[in-house]
Amino acid sequence: MKNKKEIIAGIIIIGNEVLSGRTKDLNTSTLSLWLNTLGIDVKEVRVIPDIEKLIINTVNELRSKYNYIFTTGGIGPTHDDITAESISKAFNLEYGFHKEAFSILEKYYKPGEFNEGRQKMAKMPTSASLILNPTSGAPGFYVENVFCLPGVPSILKSMLGGLNNVLVGGDPILSKTINLRTYESEIAKPLSEVQINNKEVDIGSYPFFRAGKLGVSIVLRSVDQNKIDNCNSQILAFIKAKDIEIIELD
Amino acid sequence: MKNKKEIIAGIIIIGNEVLSGRTKDLNTSTLSLWLNTLGIDVKEVRVIPDIEKLIINTVNELRSKYNYIFTTGGIGPTHDDITAESISKAFNLEYGFHKEAFSILEKYYKPGEFNEGRQKMAKMPTSASLILNPTSGAPGFYVENVFCLPGVPSILKSMLGGLNNVLVGGDPILSKTINLRTYESEIAKPLSEVQINNKEVDIGSYPFFRAGKLGVSIVLRSVDQNKIDNCNSQILAFIKAKDIEIIELD
Repeated sequence: MKNKKEIIAGIIIIGNEVLSGRTKDLNTSTLSLWLNTLGIDVKEVRVIPDIEKLIINTVNELRSKYNYIFTTGGIGPTHDDITAESISKAFNLEYGFHKEAFSILEKYYKPGEFNEGRQKMAKMPTSASLILNPTSGAPGFYVENVFCLPGVPSILKSMLGGLNNVLVGGDPILSKTINLRTYESEIAKPLSEVQINNKEVDIGSYPFFRAGKLGVSIVLRSVDQNKIDNCNSQILAFIKAKDIEIIELD
Repeated sequence: MKNKKEIIAGIIIIGNEVLSGRTKDLNTSTLSLWLNTLGIDVKEVRVIPDIEKLIINTVNELRSKYNYIFTTGGIGPTHDDITAESISKAFNLEYGFHKEAFSILEKYYKPGEFNEGRQKMAKMPTSASLILNPTSGAPGFYVENVFCLPGVPSILKSMLGGLNNVLVGGDPILSKTINLRTYESEIAKPLSEVQINNKEVDIGSYPFFRAGKLGVSIVLRSVDQNKIDNCNSQILAFIKAKDIEIIELD
C-alpha cells in the first residue's frame, strides 16, 4: 500500500477565556477527530490571547508550516472579536464588509434587527471565501489555507460538514484502542518491543481512572489497517501471556 | 494601588492523545485557575506531539519568554513517555536515576513490585527538584523555571498544592462574571464603550447556549477590585437601561 502525501494541520485557539481557565477547550477534539476522517493529521495546537499582533504572528508562522490552519474564536460582534481584522492584516488584505456575508446576515435577521453589532460579523477580508453557518447565520471564512471558525463548540461543529469537499486530505488515519485492566508499568517493556517492531504504527499508552480503578488504553494509529492488525495481534499475544484482562469502556 | 510585576506563564501539553482528538485537555483549565489564585497569568498554551526534538525546542523557546513553564504528560513508564529525557537534553543535564525519586518509589511499591517500568519513573535530570505526588507515588520534577507534571488530570491536580510555596506570584488576578439573557450584538456597542473607558480591566464577552437558550457571559478581569467594581457598575447601568435580564448559572 502506497501512502499519499502526509497532510498536516495546525489549530489556533484564540481566546482569553481558555487561557484564564474559565472555559475548557472542546474544539481541538472536535476538529482533530473530524480532520482524521479526512486524512489530515493535527500536529500542533496553540492557545493565544485576543491580541492582534499575536494573532498575526502566530497565523503567519503556522500557515507556512502546515497544509491547513484552523482558528477558533473571535469572529463575533463584540469589541474582543478581532480575529477577522487580524487575519486581514496577516494576509495584507482589505478588511471590510464582505458582500455575500452581508447579504446572508441581512436575510437571516428580521427587518430592523440587523444592527451595527450584527453587521460587524459581515466584516472580514473582503476577498475571503465563506464557511456557511447552518446554526446561527454568521458565516466563518477562509483565506488560502487558513480557516476561521467561531468559538462556540456547537456552532463550530455544525459548520464543518460544509468543508468536507473543500479540504484535500491524505489517507484517512485509522486507529484501534485496547483497554486493559492493568498498570502501565506491567506492560511497558513488551509494549516498547512491539513499537520497535512496528515503526509505522504510532502506539500510545494512556493510563486512566474509571469507577475508582486504574486501567490503561493502548491506542494504535496508522494509515494502514494491515499494520494496525499486525501490531494488535502482537499486543494481544503478550496480554494473553501475562493474563491481563481486556475491558470494554463506554 | 501599585501593581507588583506581572508574572506570566506558558503551558506545554505533551501528548499525541490530545492532538488526535481522543482526549480533551482538562489540565490547562486546572493549571490556569490555580495559577490565577497565585497571581500568575497564563499567556500561551501549546499542544505538541511526543517527539523529542519538538519538546526540546518548545521548552527552550518558551522558558525564556515566561516566568514559569508547566509541562503535562509523558512522565510515565512506557516507551512514549519521553518528557523527562527531553527536558534533560533541553537543559544539557545528566539524565539518570534521581536518588530521592528512586527512594520514594522503592518505598511506595511492595517488595518485588518495583519493576523496570516503575524504575523508569525515577529517571529524570539527576539534579532536578521533585514535585511530590500524594496520589500515585511517582513524583514530577522541576528544573529552573520548568515544572513537569503528569498528564492524568486527577493526579496532576493532587500535586499542585506542593508548589504553592515554590512559585512566586504577583497580585492575584480577580474576576467577576455577569451572565445575561441577551445576544452579544445587543450589548456590543455599550460594552465596547465601557472597555474604552476601563483600559485596565480586561472585558471578555462569551456567548453560550444553556437549556436551549442563548445568553452572554461578560467576564471582567483585573488585579484591582476597585477597577472591577467601577467597570461592573457601568455595565449594570446600560443593562438596566436596556432592560436586559441578569441570570444565575450553575
